[in-house]
Amino acid sequence: MSDRTEQSENQMWGGRFSQGPAEIMEAINASIDIDKRLWREDIAGSKAHAAMLAEAGIISRADAGAILKGLDQVAGEIEAGTFKFSKALEDIHMNVEARLKEIIGEPAGRLHTARSRNDQVATDFRLWCRSACEDAAAGIGDLMAALADRALDNADAIMPGFTHLQTAQPVTFGHHLLAYVEMFSRDAGRFMDARERMNECPLGSAALAGTPFPINRETTADALGFDRPCANSLDGVSSRDFALEMLSAAAIAATHLSRLAEEIVLWTSPQFGFASLTDAFSTGSSIMPQKRNPDAAELVRAKTGRITGSLNSLLTVMKALPLAYAKDLQEDKAATFEAVDALALALSAMTGMIRDINPNRDAMKEAAARGFSTATDIADWLVRELGLPFRDAHHVTGRIVAVAEQSGKRLDQLALADMQKVEPKITDDIFNVLSVEASAASRKAYGGTAPDNVKREAQRWIAALKKE
Amino acid sequence: MSDRTEQSENQMWGGRFSQGPAEIMEAINASIDIDKRLWREDIAGSKAHAAMLAEAGIISRADAGAILKGLDQVAGEIEAGTFKFSKALEDIHMNVEARLKEIIGEPAGRLHTARSRNDQVATDFRLWCRSACEDAAAGIGDLMAALADRALDNADAIMPGFTHLQTAQPVTFGHHLLAYVEMFSRDAGRFMDARERMNECPLGSAALAGTPFPINRETTADALGFDRPCANSLDGVSSRDFALEMLSAAAIAATHLSRLAEEIVLWTSPQFGFASLTDAFSTGSSIMPQKRNPDAAELVRAKTGRITGSLNSLLTVMKALPLAYAKDLQEDKAATFEAVDALALALSAMTGMIRDINPNRDAMKEAAARGFSTATDIADWLVRELGLPFRDAHHVTGRIVAVAEQSGKRLDQLALADMQKVEPKITDDIFNVLSVEASAASRKAYGGTAPDNVKREAQRWIAALKKE
Amino acid sequence: MSDRTEQSENQMWGGRFSQGPAEIMEAINASIDIDKRLWREDIAGSKAHAAMLAEAGIISRADAGAILKGLDQVAGEIEAGTFKFSKALEDIHMNVEARLKEIIGEPAGRLHTARSRNDQVATDFRLWCRSACEDAAAGIGDLMAALADRALDNADAIMPGFTHLQTAQPVTFGHHLLAYVEMFSRDAGRFMDARERMNECPLGSAALAGTPFPINRETTADALGFDRPCANSLDGVSSRDFALEMLSAAAIAATHLSRLAEEIVLWTSPQFGFASLTDAFSTGSSIMPQKRNPDAAELVRAKTGRITGSLNSLLTVMKALPLAYAKDLQEDKAATFEAVDALALALSAMTGMIRDINPNRDAMKEAAARGFSTATDIADWLVRELGLPFRDAHHVTGRIVAVAEQSGKRLDQLALADMQKVEPKITDDIFNVLSVEASAASRKAYGGTAPDNVKREAQRWIAALKKE
Amino acid sequence: MSDRTEQSENQMWGGRFSQGPAEIMEAINASIDIDKRLWREDIAGSKAHAAMLAEAGIISRADAGAILKGLDQVAGEIEAGTFKFSKALEDIHMNVEARLKEIIGEPAGRLHTARSRNDQVATDFRLWCRSACEDAAAGIGDLMAALADRALDNADAIMPGFTHLQTAQPVTFGHHLLAYVEMFSRDAGRFMDARERMNECPLGSAALAGTPFPINRETTADALGFDRPCANSLDGVSSRDFALEMLSAAAIAATHLSRLAEEIVLWTSPQFGFASLTDAFSTGSSIMPQKRNPDAAELVRAKTGRITGSLNSLLTVMKALPLAYAKDLQEDKAATFEAVDALALALSAMTGMIRDINPNRDAMKEAAARGFSTATDIADWLVRELGLPFRDAHHVTGRIVAVAEQSGKRLDQLALADMQKVEPKITDDIFNVLSVEASAASRKAYGGTAPDNVKREAQRWIAALKKE
Repeated sequence: MSDRTEQSENQMWGGRFSQGPAEIMEAINASIDIDKRLWREDIAGSKAHAAMLAEAGIISRADAGAILKGLDQVAGEIEAGTFKFSKALEDIHMNVEARLKEIIGEPAGRLHTARSRNDQVATDFRLWCRSACEDAAAGIGDLMAALADRALDNADAIMPGFTHLQTAQPVTFGHHLLAYVEMFSRDAGRFMDARERMNECPLGSAALAGTPFPINRETTADALGFDRPCANSLDGVSSRDFALEMLSAAAIAATHLSRLAEEIVLWTSPQFGFASLTDAFSTGSSIMPQKRNPDAAELVRAKTGRITGSLNSLLTVMKALPLAYAKDLQEDKAATFEAVDALALALSAMTGMIRDINPNRDAMKEAAARGFSTATDIADWLVRELGLPFRDAHHVTGRIVAVAEQSGKRLDQLALADMQKVEPKITDDIFNVLSVEASAASRKAYGGTAPDNVKREAQRWIAALKKE
Repeated sequence: MSDRTEQSENQMWGGRFSQGPAEIMEAINASIDIDKRLWREDIAGSKAHAAMLAEAGIISRADAGAILKGLDQVAGEIEAGTFKFSKALEDIHMNVEARLKEIIGEPAGRLHTARSRNDQVATDFRLWCRSACEDAAAGIGDLMAALADRALDNADAIMPGFTHLQTAQPVTFGHHLLAYVEMFSRDAGRFMDARERMNECPLGSAALAGTPFPINRETTADALGFDRPCANSLDGVSSRDFALEMLSAAAIAATHLSRLAEEIVLWTSPQFGFASLTDAFSTGSSIMPQKRNPDAAELVRAKTGRITGSLNSLLTVMKALPLAYAKDLQEDKAATFEAVDALALALSAMTGMIRDINPNRDAMKEAAARGFSTATDIADWLVRELGLPFRDAHHVTGRIVAVAEQSGKRLDQLALADMQKVEPKITDDIFNVLSVEASAASRKAYGGTAPDNVKREAQRWIAALKKE
Repeated sequence: MSDRTEQSENQMWGGRFSQGPAEIMEAINASIDIDKRLWREDIAGSKAHAAMLAEAGIISRADAGAILKGLDQVAGEIEAGTFKFSKALEDIHMNVEARLKEIIGEPAGRLHTARSRNDQVATDFRLWCRSACEDAAAGIGDLMAALADRALDNADAIMPGFTHLQTAQPVTFGHHLLAYVEMFSRDAGRFMDARERMNECPLGSAALAGTPFPINRETTADALGFDRPCANSLDGVSSRDFALEMLSAAAIAATHLSRLAEEIVLWTSPQFGFASLTDAFSTGSSIMPQKRNPDAAELVRAKTGRITGSLNSLLTVMKALPLAYAKDLQEDKAATFEAVDALALALSAMTGMIRDINPNRDAMKEAAARGFSTATDIADWLVRELGLPFRDAHHVTGRIVAVAEQSGKRLDQLALADMQKVEPKITDDIFNVLSVEASAASRKAYGGTAPDNVKREAQRWIAALKKE
Repeated sequence: MSDRTEQSENQMWGGRFSQGPAEIMEAINASIDIDKRLWREDIAGSKAHAAMLAEAGIISRADAGAILKGLDQVAGEIEAGTFKFSKALEDIHMNVEARLKEIIGEPAGRLHTARSRNDQVATDFRLWCRSACEDAAAGIGDLMAALADRALDNADAIMPGFTHLQTAQPVTFGHHLLAYVEMFSRDAGRFMDARERMNECPLGSAALAGTPFPINRETTADALGFDRPCANSLDGVSSRDFALEMLSAAAIAATHLSRLAEEIVLWTSPQFGFASLTDAFSTGSSIMPQKRNPDAAELVRAKTGRITGSLNSLLTVMKALPLAYAKDLQEDKAATFEAVDALALALSAMTGMIRDINPNRDAMKEAAARGFSTATDIADWLVRELGLPFRDAHHVTGRIVAVAEQSGKRLDQLALADMQKVEPKITDDIFNVLSVEASAASRKAYGGTAPDNVKREAQRWIAALKKE
């Protein structure tokens, strides 16, 4: 420990402590390895605070000027990588302030007037989370744009729609991609709602009870881009629901990413053969030279674990914690940083894969034609044309499928006579609904997979995403 | 299994299956024990669907009339408790439809035209979750009202504000309660945001691909109070992020409840003695007759486990699930119902406790005066009156506290001379900040604990909550 | 509330309470709906306790006789379904004791000597969990036996071994099934370790501090099949790590089940076509008559959510709970019961599916031959026969695979000359390693997929499982 | 990217890939930042493998000698901090092998014969987890020793035993500490069970199917301290239940730590005042100079979140993952490392606090005497001496407590006449059970809090822990 840090430590905890902290205490207590990531927010918060203190006459303009200039120098040093972080100074707040004191001397000691590390860290962390929400929403927007672009290209590319991973009905690849656009749009909405709800400024809550200094909290809130100051000082320093809400949004988005990732793993497997990734998103094997492994998709799928785990971490930390500030709250950041990083990586990788993926239209269409995928179309035809109740039509269709299965034919390969043995009123017209193209094209009701619908929706999304 | 159910089962799965399901299959597959809770939503959805089918000319008005009347009768039977639920019919949808067929015969078979159980259950579950969000927000509102009322009564009741559960600074009990009002108001906001985002109607998505029938999805969406139909049929049947978002809101609210519950357990413990609950919210002991156990608070605290666990359940279920519908989605409901029930119970119990709790003002004030809780006020005085930099003032205060601690005195019991030994410039005026009342009253900056602030905020909340 | 329950309630909480509990209090406090499931354990514990009290001279033999007879009658009534459970009596303990008092009168009041509900419920729940561990291990044993049987039948059935869901190397279906036998054997081991560690008797810990009565805890521990009494009374009533350990074992087993379930969903999908389930384990579709959905596999996969969620629930409940008994502990049972039930159901369904599943050997072998799955065998041949370093052999193989890929041939369809263009020293002998059968058969080192290995291992497991 | 790494990368993936991986791909794919922590295990595994290959005649003794020497040099470089880790080389395995090739040239290429990164990483990670289990058990042992030592010192120190955080009965501080010794002993047992179950060697499983080389897996298993090789190659490369079991043990241990940490926070709070920590385990406040915050205890409590979150992460990752190796498995390490580190830190900090903590015996005893804590002793006296049924004795006691409460007296301050008004048969003898010392001393049945019991148990544990 250098003289500087020893001195600073004393400076931090005051004059009463006679012993230094045990080594293990330093190890468990110091957060600088984690929270140094908040340096921009910390300095921005200090600058807003110092300016307000001067404006309110609590410190002199000269001192404020020195502080602002000194903080800029500190920021420059950190940016340049020349700043020396000290574990003995525990956290980013004390690291910055101690350096400020080295640079400007006595006025540095006036910066902490009318605030505490409790409101300082709450402010820093909210600022960081606010940016993280914006970045997540932007990353999701990029992914949505990639999906919408590919959906437009593939508005009429027939593929099997699955339920229970069994061939159910033909859909289009574009329609499938747009389902994810819908999901991700809600994810983005969740991040933006979280951003809005968290955008209140805790600065000025001080340790827990507010401050007797005549501070102007509107001023600092404004300067830092907050909508307003927090209305209750205890809440301001004790609450972390803003981080929990962001982590929830991340966990939900991660499940969506994991679903799409799982599908990419399936589609690029030789058994499906629906699509391929280029070398840019595949890796080889150390022992099997022929492999093209969809590692990126698998890693995106796995990141769900990290993100869900982080949400659990913080929910567990917050459970049954009495007010106001408790040191437990220091454990909010590692989990949050990891989840946000994992989500950013997963979003980028997924956007890359979506732009990269090469659908095999022939294989998909061929698969869609198997498995009696237009059976429902027969049932619907029976309802529409013969007036059968749907449940009866369903039974008739079941028997027609059984005939096809036993004779090893596709539905469109059955003879009319075969179908008429099951239901005599069936006419030639039924063949109009037996192709996968006809099936998809017929689903024109709003939200259905008809290529025209898909094209219109893709264009709508592309336009909407451009506007943002 | 009765004839009726065997018949209905055949009716459900069509004519191809030659074997009945194994016993274990029925046990794992049937969901009726869980999803019968959706009966109101299922019947409402069917009525909206039937009315629309008739309006669109897909079924006759006579059939629709019979269906609507029959469904009302089914609803009446379930309401009256005379309806016989059948496990062989698997789920609420088939139970209702089978009974409808018994009542109205053939037209019942026309109800399932242009829909599937996939969009049907998605619609039912969204309707249920929408109500659950509204109920949760209302329950939270009741709790907020109780808290705000008690805050107004206790706007000037001094208690120790803790950080690290150590006495930090005096606050008022009202201020403390209002911190929770702030937290819960964000919880209510999350539920209402979730409600808004989920309020799109999946009905008409059919199995997964939409339908070839000329349905009008705006009509059914309107009839069921949805803002609009879902824009993508695959998304409509495959997504459960609406439930995940609601469960996230519930989990976050549960952490807030657990924090308040923990505090009630602490406050009512003999070591704190800050408050008591009446017999209405205490229980006795089978072996220790003197006990008044805050069981309700402990159970509220523990419900966090159930709610967080449910969120985890559904996140795990959804991970890596390919589109479109998979049977895994059936596992969404048990977890959701349990979490919503647990939250409702916890909210009611907490509202009851808040209305019931009897703060011991004397004990709280007495505790606030111990622990040198106005030390910060000394430091602030040194800054304000002597112009010391805060960091220096902090050091001086530390030495004054050490003097008090060594002599076994409170800060307000120290002689001026004792303080002047540490810092000669200290004057008599300092005694104006050494009482807990003065300390609290001085924290007048926005968000601070000054009784005037607390009173104003409590009144603001009471008025706002009445308006809703 | 009947006279009986009012009276019993008073009886339970003693004479000090002047008000009845609020309605919400009863709703949140009563556990009888959940814990009535412990009736057998509760009565067994009470019988052991009463017998010991008499043996130790704490109650008279006559009273003990009356208690034992009365408890048998209560057990008979519960078994017969004639017992009336009362919510006002809160829990199974008071329900049983209140009925005992109705039957035998005054001596019933002596049963609770030297015990408390705290040690009583801890004993009941340990007994229940102990059985649950045994049942889970037995259920896992059944599944292992089914897997080993099918593995023996399919010891030489070639299928593609996947990494990253890409064809990697041929394996046998038997080998694949035995991988799960290994996993499940560890799961069974975890349950049995949990059983052993939990098998200590808390009875006699009383409320928390032990008892002044001269009880013999060895006697009750023995009578209930415990290995010994718990050594510390506070631990006895406060700990639930036994349930957490069991839930952990369940959660890990559930991930194994979910992996196998996922594979069954894949194998039975039309794209894979590796296997089929009979109607006994498939379900149909209400709208797509041709579907055979692997619902049971999907539900097994989804049950992981419930089980993991339950583990999380109880971990959350237990976090930061001070000693000794707290009402929070009442929330241990619902989560545990649900997880144990879900696991039992999932194990039964999986055992049924494994016995039911019909592998399509031709399709699997055909798939194994695609994808250059014997490329590694070429590399190994180059190392063995030509002495190339493995890394060089890997490069050479990569180039041979590229040749095959470009010419659209399988590796065993390449001409020797084609291969010699890449590496001139390759001889005819290489064709001995290019077939999938040769590849699998060559992996004879311990643990490898060679059919002889698989047969031997399957037989070993079948023999071992019979012994148990 | 340096020439060296480009070359090495080609070396790794073979000759077929024409494009380099996209930047995002490298970011998500590379694991070296995490898995470099496995370098010791990786080199140990490679040395065992090389020695075995030579012994089995698969590589020459000269090559093996060069490899072993080269690996020692690599180990030395990493130890010395001179090794340059490369992200382009993805992971620890390729980093080591690439450097080995630089040092020894061609023979390096022979090391990877008969193995794959899949079995290599599974081996490395098991070795690491095995050590982690041993370290965790050792750390727990240290904590148990500290607890047992302090328990012996405090075998007769009376404190209030709480249920529901209400004063219930007097216990001794030693007894309370020994309750945690029991809990932690089971935690250690779980780690050792996990260690034993995981101690099978995957090396030789190769990519997934085993190997055609005549390797001797017993030899490598022995050399690395494993009990035996894994019996199934697919299981060997695909399973991570060993890590899940370790994480479960960690999560359960963390809940125990969080309970004790919560109690330390309570005990050191001014309201309790039961104990204090020295400066070594307290921290000050930046704004409130008088504070001694139990930060270490709070951080231990919060670490539960991190550890539980890690367990959740890996459970989520493993859910529904088909065999064999998938890249998802790469996400096992970060979560595991974090949990193991967090547990180690928490154990050390807790051991330090237990050795440091200074109980305030007077305050504890004084608190124990309040709250009618010997009421149960009255009830037990009534049963023992007057032959009342326990339930009746409980009622009588309730009325006596009510008398004491109304008259503001302790139970031992009541006049005999006051008690006789409630139950005339009460005699003077009852005063023998009304003191807290008498109450504690009377609980002599096995497991009870009587000081003699506590002393004996503490000595037993101290002796047992010394042996280990």
